[in-house]
Amino acid sequence: MKKQSIGVGLIGLGVVGGGVARVLKNKANILAEQVGCPLALRKIKVLASDLSRPLAKEMDSNLFTTDIDDFFASPVDIVVEAIGGENPALEYLKRAISNGKHVVTSNKEVIAKHGAELLALAGQKGVELGYEASVGGGIPLIAPFRRDLVANEIRGIYAIINGTTNYILTKMAREGVDFSSALKQAQKLGYAEVNPENDIEGIDAAYKLAILASLAFQTQVRPDDIYCEGISRLGSCDFRYAKELGFAIRLLAIAKRSNNSIEVRVHPVLIPQDSLLANVDGVYNAVLVEGDLVGKVLFFGEGAGAQPTSSAVVADIVSVAQRIVLGAGSKAGWRPKPGKNIKPMSDIEIRYYIRMNVADRSGVLAQISKILGDHKISIASVIQKETDNMAQTAEIVIMTHLAKEKATQLALDELAKLAVVKEVSNFIRVEA
Amino acid sequence: MKKQSIGVGLIGLGVVGGGVARVLKNKANILAEQVGCPLALRKIKVLASDLSRPLAKEMDSNLFTTDIDDFFASPVDIVVEAIGGENPALEYLKRAISNGKHVVTSNKEVIAKHGAELLALAGQKGVELGYEASVGGGIPLIAPFRRDLVANEIRGIYAIINGTTNYILTKMAREGVDFSSALKQAQKLGYAEVNPENDIEGIDAAYKLAILASLAFQTQVRPDDIYCEGISRLGSCDFRYAKELGFAIRLLAIAKRSNNSIEVRVHPVLIPQDSLLANVDGVYNAVLVEGDLVGKVLFFGEGAGAQPTSSAVVADIVSVAQRIVLGAGSKAGWRPKPGKNIKPMSDIEIRYYIRMNVADRSGVLAQISKILGDHKISIASVIQKETDNMAQTAEIVIMTHLAKEKATQLALDELAKLAVVKEVSNFIRVEA
Repeated sequence: MKKQSIGVGLIGLGVVGGGVARVLKNKANILAEQVGCPLALRKIKVLASDLSRPLAKEMDSNLFTTDIDDFFASPVDIVVEAIGGENPALEYLKRAISNGKHVVTSNKEVIAKHGAELLALAGQKGVELGYEASVGGGIPLIAPFRRDLVANEIRGIYAIINGTTNYILTKMAREGVDFSSALKQAQKLGYAEVNPENDIEGIDAAYKLAILASLAFQTQVRPDDIYCEGISRLGSCDFRYAKELGFAIRLLAIAKRSNNSIEVRVHPVLIPQDSLLANVDGVYNAVLVEGDLVGKVLFFGEGAGAQPTSSAVVADIVSVAQRIVLGAGSKAGWRPKPGKNIKPMSDIEIRYYIRMNVADRSGVLAQISKILGDHKISIASVIQKETDNMAQTAEIVIMTHLAKEKATQLALDELAKLAVVKEVSNFIRVEA
Repeated sequence: MKKQSIGVGLIGLGVVGGGVARVLKNKANILAEQVGCPLALRKIKVLASDLSRPLAKEMDSNLFTTDIDDFFASPVDIVVEAIGGENPALEYLKRAISNGKHVVTSNKEVIAKHGAELLALAGQKGVELGYEASVGGGIPLIAPFRRDLVANEIRGIYAIINGTTNYILTKMAREGVDFSSALKQAQKLGYAEVNPENDIEGIDAAYKLAILASLAFQTQVRPDDIYCEGISRLGSCDFRYAKELGFAIRLLAIAKRSNNSIEVRVHPVLIPQDSLLANVDGVYNAVLVEGDLVGKVLFFGEGAGAQPTSSAVVADIVSVAQRIVLGAGSKAGWRPKPGKNIKPMSDIEIRYYIRMNVADRSGVLAQISKILGDHKISIASVIQKETDNMAQTAEIVIMTHLAKEKATQLALDELAKLAVVKEVSNFIRVEA
């Protein structure tokens, strides 16, 4: 039984929603060919303010409604949610699924916080939930985990998934500027919001990591499970020292299988300069995945923007529509398995870069090494950096071998209390 | 109606076939969970010589047959072809499809040469043809084109898809060795075959490009349509000069949309040192795709080997099996559209690096520039390199602006005939 067309309803006509509407309109023929019948955009839930936008004026005004009940009364097969944020998006998605509609969303916050619940509901109702666009813009990530890497045990994910912070870090490294002026530049170019906290504190990256880790490990990783540290305390000298040591600085979102538990964390790291991730510059995103069969695979591209995000949303729409046309049942999403534990941050083992301002006299290093040694932290290298003759202080940078996070934090507290240590200026974890 | 199990038949127990058999055996539970019912390996077509392998001895001997008719008489839903080469693989695939079996193959040669025909046959018979493993080992490439990038008009593909040549080029660049000793090293490590022609002449890369370009442009690109040049004429000095100019040398497989035609070519290129592809070292593969919506996306990973290739083959098996379980019809592969022309190599426009050995006296450059000028080739930069005082010759390297291939080849012929030009030592195209 051939369908005449597949009805699509769109919630939101902002950056993403507008982009999706444009693609559905401009590429109608190509998409119909892929699906096997036309995709008909039947209703768009807008805000009154959207109606004055140029895009709204190009479109048939009968498509628009500002009333959500009116929207849900329209004959659509697939509901696309493109408003972002937790509420009312969550309510809309639940309502759509409960009504037996397939849903597609680009909403990282809702999926990160409520993905497991929504997938379970979709499974009960026999509908699809597409969320490819929730992570990494147009870079294929969700589908590869669901399809291409399905035979793999995922060992780890190492991801640059926030363009704003990667732009700021690239700028600090290249131009030697400090954090606040790099941030200002990012805001001027529209890469950072006026209130940039979600990006620079790593919250956005944690949402995306929660989505990827849940899928990769088939367990429910919530944003709150993720240790999260932002980039605002990085100094321009850290970039200089890192470079001298052969490292670049990146904000990585990391999920790692370790025995029976998983590590999930977002924080700045030193990574070797010649690694692929160190060469991902500016607003680009890249996700490195390690699987037991496939080894290392990396996915790279633009992580945001109307067009890349539309690419992913429309791919999901086409995929769902193809399944409707082929009369296929719903493919299950991941189902959380019991017994997977999140490793507490204090238990992880990693290398550290520690920068300190110390008194410029003999015996200082002995006192520092003693404290580190007491906590079973061994020093890989130490370099004395700039000396301030007036203040009789020197800056030293210590690279440690693998050490426990808990021990290192205790040691850092003790170091800060030493009379000869003026300041523990910074510490950055190292991924080799 | 729930199936009790899905029968898999495997043709070939070599590197890929053996890898697939191991994964189906070792990961039976995980795969059954993904599919919704067990995957049962029911028959393996082997050569008599395979039976003495350790893997064969671990397995139930009833699984094996050396007789292809016996193989096809077994009750399987999915036939996996893992013998490689054109014949008899093509015949086996056709027979399987004609018998209404879904097929999965890792065979680049068969898909490059007969993909369109096999996909049409599969379409008629309502079965799936999975060929993810035919390009790039475990790197997801076919599925992203078929699913994730479906809303995009693909503008271009720039691919490092032959690990052997990339290993040799990396070695020549890093260690300053010449081609033949880098090749010997590659052979010693098992990265190059005893008869390495298919790899070093770009034939293997052309097969893979034919597969990707056909899919990306929905047209039939045959291996014979692809202009193909290998890496054997690269000298170690080319790497030195390229580096000085800020470039790396890579063997790229390129497919590009240009107006109403497409360019498809495999040849060594100079690419900027800081580009992502220039940082893909050793036996790794990477494919950069440009789409109108998604911008640039890059896929990177191991392009060969038993485990990565098994990862892709098993992903295809699971995907087909899921469709069987869900009772879905067959999803069409690409169907060639008429009217897409392959641009003749002589018509392409590109920049060139030209290395010549010339008489070390005044007026030489004037004669060279005149010939280039006559062919409307303008010089971007020229550097005089090593001088041989004894022979009174000098090496010069010219970088041109964009020029027509045809004009450049004519100019190179004329340059070679100049009395002051001892030798046109090399030319390499430049992708910026």
